[in-house]
Amino acid sequence: MDRVERTYLQVAAFVDGLVAAGVRHACVSPGSRSSPLALLLGRHPAIRIWIHLDERSSGYFALGLAKVSREPVAILCTSGTAAANLLPAVVEARYGRVPLVVLTADRPPELRDAGAPQTIDQLRLYGPHAKWFVDVPVFGGREPDERYAHALASRAVTTARTPPAGPVHLNFPFREPLVPAPGAIPAFGTPTTSPHPAAPSPRSPDAGAIARIADQLLGDPRGLIVCGPQDDPDLPAAMAGLARATGFPILADPLSLARCGSHDRGLVVDAYDALLRDTPTRGALEPQVVMRVGAPPTSKALMTYLAEHAGARQVQVAGEQGWNDPDFVGSEAVDGDPRLVVDALTLAVRERRPAPDGDDWADRWRDLDRRARAGLTAWLARVDEPFEGSAIAALAAALPDGATLYVGNSMPIRDLDAFVGGSRRKVRFAANRGASGIDGVLSSALGASVASDGPLALAIGDVSFLHDLGGLAAAKRHGLRATVLLLNNDGGGIFNVLPVAEHEQFEALFGTPHGLDFSAVGDLFGVTFRRPEGRAELRAEIAASLEGNGVTVIEVRTERARNVALHREAQQAVRAALAGGPARVANLAGVAR
Amino acid sequence: MDRVERTYLQVAAFVDGLVAAGVRHACVSPGSRSSPLALLLGRHPAIRIWIHLDERSSGYFALGLAKVSREPVAILCTSGTAAANLLPAVVEARYGRVPLVVLTADRPPELRDAGAPQTIDQLRLYGPHAKWFVDVPVFGGREPDERYAHALASRAVTTARTPPAGPVHLNFPFREPLVPAPGAIPAFGTPTTSPHPAAPSPRSPDAGAIARIADQLLGDPRGLIVCGPQDDPDLPAAMAGLARATGFPILADPLSLARCGSHDRGLVVDAYDALLRDTPTRGALEPQVVMRVGAPPTSKALMTYLAEHAGARQVQVAGEQGWNDPDFVGSEAVDGDPRLVVDALTLAVRERRPAPDGDDWADRWRDLDRRARAGLTAWLARVDEPFEGSAIAALAAALPDGATLYVGNSMPIRDLDAFVGGSRRKVRFAANRGASGIDGVLSSALGASVASDGPLALAIGDVSFLHDLGGLAAAKRHGLRATVLLLNNDGGGIFNVLPVAEHEQFEALFGTPHGLDFSAVGDLFGVTFRRPEGRAELRAEIAASLEGNGVTVIEVRTERARNVALHREAQQAVRAALAGGPARVANLAGVAR
Repeated sequence: MDRVERTYLQVAAFVDGLVAAGVRHACVSPGSRSSPLALLLGRHPAIRIWIHLDERSSGYFALGLAKVSREPVAILCTSGTAAANLLPAVVEARYGRVPLVVLTADRPPELRDAGAPQTIDQLRLYGPHAKWFVDVPVFGGREPDERYAHALASRAVTTARTPPAGPVHLNFPFREPLVPAPGAIPAFGTPTTSPHPAAPSPRSPDAGAIARIADQLLGDPRGLIVCGPQDDPDLPAAMAGLARATGFPILADPLSLARCGSHDRGLVVDAYDALLRDTPTRGALEPQVVMRVGAPPTSKALMTYLAEHAGARQVQVAGEQGWNDPDFVGSEAVDGDPRLVVDALTLAVRERRPAPDGDDWADRWRDLDRRARAGLTAWLARVDEPFEGSAIAALAAALPDGATLYVGNSMPIRDLDAFVGGSRRKVRFAANRGASGIDGVLSSALGASVASDGPLALAIGDVSFLHDLGGLAAAKRHGLRATVLLLNNDGGGIFNVLPVAEHEQFEALFGTPHGLDFSAVGDLFGVTFRRPEGRAELRAEIAASLEGNGVTVIEVRTERARNVALHREAQQAVRAALAGGPARVANLAGVAR
Repeated sequence: MDRVERTYLQVAAFVDGLVAAGVRHACVSPGSRSSPLALLLGRHPAIRIWIHLDERSSGYFALGLAKVSREPVAILCTSGTAAANLLPAVVEARYGRVPLVVLTADRPPELRDAGAPQTIDQLRLYGPHAKWFVDVPVFGGREPDERYAHALASRAVTTARTPPAGPVHLNFPFREPLVPAPGAIPAFGTPTTSPHPAAPSPRSPDAGAIARIADQLLGDPRGLIVCGPQDDPDLPAAMAGLARATGFPILADPLSLARCGSHDRGLVVDAYDALLRDTPTRGALEPQVVMRVGAPPTSKALMTYLAEHAGARQVQVAGEQGWNDPDFVGSEAVDGDPRLVVDALTLAVRERRPAPDGDDWADRWRDLDRRARAGLTAWLARVDEPFEGSAIAALAAALPDGATLYVGNSMPIRDLDAFVGGSRRKVRFAANRGASGIDGVLSSALGASVASDGPLALAIGDVSFLHDLGGLAAAKRHGLRATVLLLNNDGGGIFNVLPVAEHEQFEALFGTPHGLDFSAVGDLFGVTFRRPEGRAELRAEIAASLEGNGVTVIEVRTERARNVALHREAQQAVRAALAGGPARVANLAGVAR
């Protein structure tokens, strides 16, 4: 057996190991040095290949797929800057806790730093952002053998999945020849099992810590459960149990998975962003104890409120969830799988006190929440001009059970937070909130479309859309289905809400209008492009796209300055709803124009 | 004075230091955390700002600009994955020896790894690919003061420029507030001089090494000068001097700058790729000594030939040029600035022997070179179907003095090497051959257009074009001028020449046709799109674009399999030209169809 044949046997054992450990999808970018892995991934019947010409888009596609499926996804690219293009997705996966198995091809050690083409230093290329890095020994000799290759795959997948989930990086040096004769590529049998566990066990919290925290929760009647972005679909029901046991409202970030679904949402508050922007209301809602789960919430108003109440006891599920306390207000951290922590706390609270005391704290939150949401909804219904918040609300309202709504960073996630309330429909909201970049969002959403139970919708701004424009090539290539709501305000809309908007250089350096007409993306990428006029047309286009095939880009054009004014008007409507009634809201809305 | 005002004074001193050290261009992507640097770079009258929404494109635009201008270019981006998107350009700059000053904004240390948004680990984010990394102390206190900020800028620019030139990375943490009142931004005076030298001195070679090598060059009559990719515009004339002194031909890579220009090209051989692919010819050209300058040549035939003659004395200018010997055939390396090394060798050779001995070695090379080039040219003239080689040759032939021809990696650089001979016109050929990636090529060329003395042309394949499609947004935004020859063979054409093309999975995993119609890029990006039919139309479109304004994308559609056949036919034409005459060439060309 020659070297190339032995290489292929060993790579086959590696691919077999990936499958045995649960990998079902591989995002592959074309290249020569990566041929052994490409050919064998491509031949395994259990692996579906997703070709992407741009490795950056490939990485983000894999990220979206892995985030929504909660299964590790493999990424393969060739050597050189190809591998460097994966860094953004690797970083997002690290902070967003998404399991990725990154496979980069490389020259063998003797050709490194010697002027060989497409050869860069790939050792620890992703630095601390890869959870685990292996410079794999060159395959093709007698050692290491297939057992090593299989075990390496198992270990890589297990490491990526172990909480906090994240990306691992295996660098594969290959010597030439890279390809055997067409008949000499080994076939796969049934995947062999691995000596390594493929499914990591969740960690249980310390019983003493649970008992202590349960006592604290019971000691303070004005408590809150704050749930930030997190990806465990079973956590919302667990939190509902803790809310019932304690009587505490749940302030549910849109990315907490707790706003929508069939779980008990009786204590879920979702208009807190509007409530806490209202200074008198915020002042009247002083918490004594806060149980924090997940990443820091998206809402700046909520973060400010929590920072203002640094004196309250703030307990965090930390450790596996990271150390999510940028305002240094945490008073205690409990380590462990968040669901196990919450379930253990619920049990401990119930043991101590069968039913919560009747007090008006939770009722006050629920009443304010309902009034704020009603005020917002009534105001939205009256806005008869293009507005990003109402477009996102219309999109969310149209989504059926099982749908996924991906949202871009900057304004879309904030508009989702503000303008989309909860629902019994199981709609999954998702965003790249690990590093909160505007890059790769389109590809992430297209990757998520593969794993979504129902239709995939994306709400994205024009700058973010343009940043990942080439990612749209996957739509036609892979016959994907998605509804893309493109909120085009011709530049960086989020900067208009910042103090820098007052500077004379603002438009040149921050607003940065591009003046592009996106209607041509339809012809370029073989997708449908629509630019509906008015609310009814927008709704009709959304409905048609959700029921249709292919990818539809539905553009809503807005103005950045007007958008800021409308957000202020919305907040005035909330204030009026909290203070008085709909008459005053209408007045204020009129005045703001 | 409050903290934000002091921050701006210190950042102003830093920007002043950049200008004092020679920075004139800054590529800036919008962001909030980077506001102090953006506002002050934007206000300096000596700095031109190039806005790019995609940091990856921004990095490559800066790279192209810096490569052709040979001056350091600053890049600014905000925190998070924005900074990660610069890795590909940083890697290319490192291996391509291009001076870049990368400025990333960051959260202050207390907000790192604590769940703050858009906060990632940016320390040594580019690993070994940044020549120098500084995590800048947070500005805004009394220390460090403006003197530090100014000196930091000088040192950063000097480090980037010191051979081997490359990227440096300064990470700037800023605390809020990030923006002062509009009136409180400091004004710039005349840039103050710096205590640090801004222009690094070239290093002189060791006199003993020069004497020893001069003796070796004189001892072996069959010598060659091989010049790979390099960016010093004065080196070709110096090499011509050494060639005259030794009587050795110069095998000039298209990226050596030696093929075109008004320097003495009497001993320049440019059809060596075709010559050395011809086995009998290659066998008859045995060198005894080889003087190698620059990076490894693009031509695989030349690299193979040099590896076959490992027994010949092969002297490399290494050290500053890197260690460019992937075949381990070098017998001696001399350190120093390449031009100083070549000039010193010329002087030493002339001292030892006033004029070269008459022998037929150089004449034989020149004769073969002329015949191969004539055979190729005659064959190209007869090809009346779309062919990538003839399209690139037509583009190169149309370029006026001072023009720059950027070429993509994979096939365009190889077709340039094979099908474009030298010229007295000063046409600069350029490519990203540091890491030879297909990414960022469009943005690099657009950046180079800013620094080019004459028109900028780009020859690029469809996969590479699609990889950096969003980079085309710079065309309209900045009113750029460029002629883009898009060679669209619907997939990865270079893979068709590899053994993997015989595998049944080839099209799915390597060919990867996308089926996109690029004509829509005209409307999308506000550029002109043309798809000429036939040779005459192609030439007319090229000519019109070179004389016109704006960016024109001229698409030539080809077939990958046919392209491979035509390359074989070209080589048969060369063989015939070397062996016999035009009659036999015509025969072979006929047979191959």
